[in-house]
Amino acid sequence: MHSITEYREEFIKYLNSKQITKEPRNLYEPITYILGLGGKRLRPVLVLMTAEIFDVDFSKALNAATAIEIFHNFSLVHDDIMDDAPVRRGKTTVHEKWDINTGILSGDAMLIMAYQLFENYEPTVFRDLAKLFSKTALEVCEGQQYDVDFETRDDVMLPEYLKMIECKTAVLVAAALKMGAIVAGASEASQDQMYAFGLNLGIAFQLQDDYLDVFGDPKTFGKQVGGDIIENKKTYLYLKAMNSDSVVITKELEHLYSIQPKESETKVNAVRSIFIKTKADIATQNAIEDYTTKAFNVLLEMDIEQSKKDLLRQFGENLMNRKV
Amino acid sequence: MHSITEYREEFIKYLNSKQITKEPRNLYEPITYILGLGGKRLRPVLVLMTAEIFDVDFSKALNAATAIEIFHNFSLVHDDIMDDAPVRRGKTTVHEKWDINTGILSGDAMLIMAYQLFENYEPTVFRDLAKLFSKTALEVCEGQQYDVDFETRDDVMLPEYLKMIECKTAVLVAAALKMGAIVAGASEASQDQMYAFGLNLGIAFQLQDDYLDVFGDPKTFGKQVGGDIIENKKTYLYLKAMNSDSVVITKELEHLYSIQPKESETKVNAVRSIFIKTKADIATQNAIEDYTTKAFNVLLEMDIEQSKKDLLRQFGENLMNRKV
Repeated sequence: MHSITEYREEFIKYLNSKQITKEPRNLYEPITYILGLGGKRLRPVLVLMTAEIFDVDFSKALNAATAIEIFHNFSLVHDDIMDDAPVRRGKTTVHEKWDINTGILSGDAMLIMAYQLFENYEPTVFRDLAKLFSKTALEVCEGQQYDVDFETRDDVMLPEYLKMIECKTAVLVAAALKMGAIVAGASEASQDQMYAFGLNLGIAFQLQDDYLDVFGDPKTFGKQVGGDIIENKKTYLYLKAMNSDSVVITKELEHLYSIQPKESETKVNAVRSIFIKTKADIATQNAIEDYTTKAFNVLLEMDIEQSKKDLLRQFGENLMNRKV
Repeated sequence: MHSITEYREEFIKYLNSKQITKEPRNLYEPITYILGLGGKRLRPVLVLMTAEIFDVDFSKALNAATAIEIFHNFSLVHDDIMDDAPVRRGKTTVHEKWDINTGILSGDAMLIMAYQLFENYEPTVFRDLAKLFSKTALEVCEGQQYDVDFETRDDVMLPEYLKMIECKTAVLVAAALKMGAIVAGASEASQDQMYAFGLNLGIAFQLQDDYLDVFGDPKTFGKQVGGDIIENKKTYLYLKAMNSDSVVITKELEHLYSIQPKESETKVNAVRSIFIKTKADIATQNAIEDYTTKAFNVLLEMDIEQSKKDLLRQFGENLMNRKV
């Protein structure tokens, strides 16, 4: 087994070797651009790591890992158009640097290119990968749609929210782990266990993202702290706080989430106070803990060496202990 | 073998049986909407017909046919956003009826759903279909990009234009025919012949579309006659006319293609006259004839019964004899 850093480096090396800017340039240049912006490369690393957990050289999983990363970036390109986001990973988004049409079309091409990477596997593996990929990709679209729908709804329930983040974020993490297992020819039971591990870890990860968006350190958090509050995003924290018994508090929170002041600091601070007063912060931390534990419990049942369980657990702990 | 009308009816019956509006409704309703708008269903009919040409019941090809039709509609939804088109098949376009974000996301879901339909075939057929589909889909994206690029270029050459319409239109017709052959388990040689037949017929079809856009009967042509001229679209007719030896003519045409008058009739008539004067109309008809003949010549070499060659030829003739 290699370290996370080694997997990341090997993946980036492979990704760069695949980058050839073909004609028409206006279609392929934005793809090279977005794939080169960096990011944690979390999902491809998971594919490579899982292949080795099931005793297959990670190099066999590089194409599947690339497919996952290209898909993830496809969804960023299209989501950034929908969210009208000017910046991604500190750089200009594709539709801002080029235009919306370029963002749409280059994104479409990326989705197709992701499928093409599975062609490097033999027919049954190809079908298993493509099938899982399609199911996952469609769920990601559904998650994005729920996210959009929730913006204009004031009756979103916690289970709906959890379903949304499961679709929008967690299924792709789960699919990355399962893909590694598929490439390695692991048993269906093992594939499903890796999926369950990833799904729970993915939900925990997204809930932590919600938490850090409000309580993270502005110096290290990749995005603007308070961003969700400024955008009136109904996160886990908000929905928990709205469950408060105090009508005074829920009315105040509802009011704060109906305004968009130019100077946002006062609003962010007021909402943050409510999250603390209603113990929504603690409830969110508990939920993060619960999903993380669920993920780790899956590991206990798995039929793999203890050292590999430790590795997956360590990966999960590192992921969940980020204080950014 | 069945008639074109029967294939179309069987296809529509199957498509309707597959239409279940799932949650989230805002993602799936636009898909049901666009797929229900009608159209000639040319591509799926070709898939079904080709399967029977290679002695397999058309019902085995229904999933591949549906994949092609869903992909075709996906490309219409995204193209209509890019072209800012308000109307498609006489009805409001998806992004006009809902919004751009819905158009992007529902389109993405359609592309994925198309791949899912191949899951109904056994692994090697699945891989062959998905591989051809990915290659084709990427070419369609490239064709669309070339089309967009050509709008702002004044040095487009005829071979580039032919390459563009090949990618944007012809490869999908070719892929439809090849898919029918793949599903039927036809030899690779037969698959390639069907592809070549479709590719040439597809180019002829698109050139005819260019021709009818200028010289078609307003009563029966589905789109606005003169639409390409109004939009200053550099079609085969335009590029041929620009090859004229007369500088007076090319300067006049260049000028006409630089203006967008509110009242377009004078401009359309002036351009139409130039197309006739430069014999661009005849050149285009000759090109249509050439590509159609090329397509029919492929049939001559094929190792299938004469009655089936006749059927394919008849299909091609009907397609090319539309006077709309």
